[in-house]
Amino acid sequence: MSVRDPVPAMSAALKGAQIYFGPFLVTSQVKYPPIPHRKIISLTVHKVFHLTPLSFALVNLKPILPGHVLVSSRRRVPRVADLTAAETSDLFLTVQRVGRMVERVYGASSLNIAVQDGPEAGQSVAHVHAHIIPRKRADLDHRGGIDAVYHLLDGEEGDLRRAFGEGKEGERRPRAKFPAVDNEGRSPRSMEEMEAEAEMLAREMERMEREIVG
Amino acid sequence: MSVRDPVPAMSAALKGAQIYFGPFLVTSQVKYPPIPHRKIISLTVHKVFHLTPLSFALVNLKPILPGHVLVSSRRRVPRVADLTAAETSDLFLTVQRVGRMVERVYGASSLNIAVQDGPEAGQSVAHVHAHIIPRKRADLDHRGGIDAVYHLLDGEEGDLRRAFGEGKEGERRPRAKFPAVDNEGRSPRSMEEMEAEAEMLAREMERMEREIVG
Repeated sequence: MSVRDPVPAMSAALKGAQIYFGPFLVTSQVKYPPIPHRKIISLTVHKVFHLTPLSFALVNLKPILPGHVLVSSRRRVPRVADLTAAETSDLFLTVQRVGRMVERVYGASSLNIAVQDGPEAGQSVAHVHAHIIPRKRADLDHRGGIDAVYHLLDGEEGDLRRAFGEGKEGERRPRAKFPAVDNEGRSPRSMEEMEAEAEMLAREMERMEREIVG
Repeated sequence: MSVRDPVPAMSAALKGAQIYFGPFLVTSQVKYPPIPHRKIISLTVHKVFHLTPLSFALVNLKPILPGHVLVSSRRRVPRVADLTAAETSDLFLTVQRVGRMVERVYGASSLNIAVQDGPEAGQSVAHVHAHIIPRKRADLDHRGGIDAVYHLLDGEEGDLRRAFGEGKEGERRPRAKFPAVDNEGRSPRSMEEMEAEAEMLAREMERMEREIVG
């Protein structure tokens, strides 16, 4: 196969990167491996699993469905219109690549791709980001059908913000009220679970890109 | 201002173009102006209002909210993963430009941008397309809140397909069932209304691009 994407991934740069999603640091120095008497290597796979020159991809605290991830611009701007042409291209080429990968890894057959571009569209973290949600046949029939994903998406947005920062930054954005969503059944994932998924997805992205280049 | 977009718009090419959205022809030769004894000029502003080398934008039969439009790839492929890097960039740069324009023209302050990428994600026309829906504060409070747009989106998708082609092509795609949506209140727009909107949006796109280049 030939190289399709003009912007190469820089997975190696994940180590040591400090990436912010809105006001929230989504990389962190974790000690790995946790083995005594062995050189400690710092990994920064806390939530971010893929990095390009202008974009990054991160896992979710409360995924709506398995493989639900976000792709965000590295520059912290609130609106799609604030992105340069290069940033816009890179963001959606990253959405395309990451979407292909999570669809395969999670055994899905479709994707919901959604950008809440501004507070009146449901955006809660003022930093451009696209949701990618792998879909399978009848995967939400028990929650109300195919479009239940959007109810859950809006619930997730709220959860995401609360999980990252409520009470920490004092930055609050007014957000329109909407009907109560079935969030009670979803409990936040552990740090270990999120890191394990982020590591797995980072490996899958590198593998896929080796295949594309090779 | 400087030129931000690498792919220039080709609004002039709208005249005479034959554009398909899935199996449906969305441009048509209409006679304009309707004045006797005057040279008849063919315009193709039926539903398409903007054209780039790789993408096009079209108005909706039943917009969920004022300014709800679609941006689609000119090549008829079903999935985002089927697009080349150049097509992906062009599609979302067009989404960015068209979104900026409809937000301004319709006096909105946010945008919902959504791609139903595959049938399990709610896609009904097997041709990559992004929905752009201008949002204002409290615009859907009477319909159930901010996320009511997604219920309406899935309804719209079904309506769009029915409006364009039910019973004409015999091409049907299985589509997951979902709860009944309040579509009864939305009646299809007249051809004249759609053409008038497409013409207005084509002018606005040209004006905006002159401003960006100039």
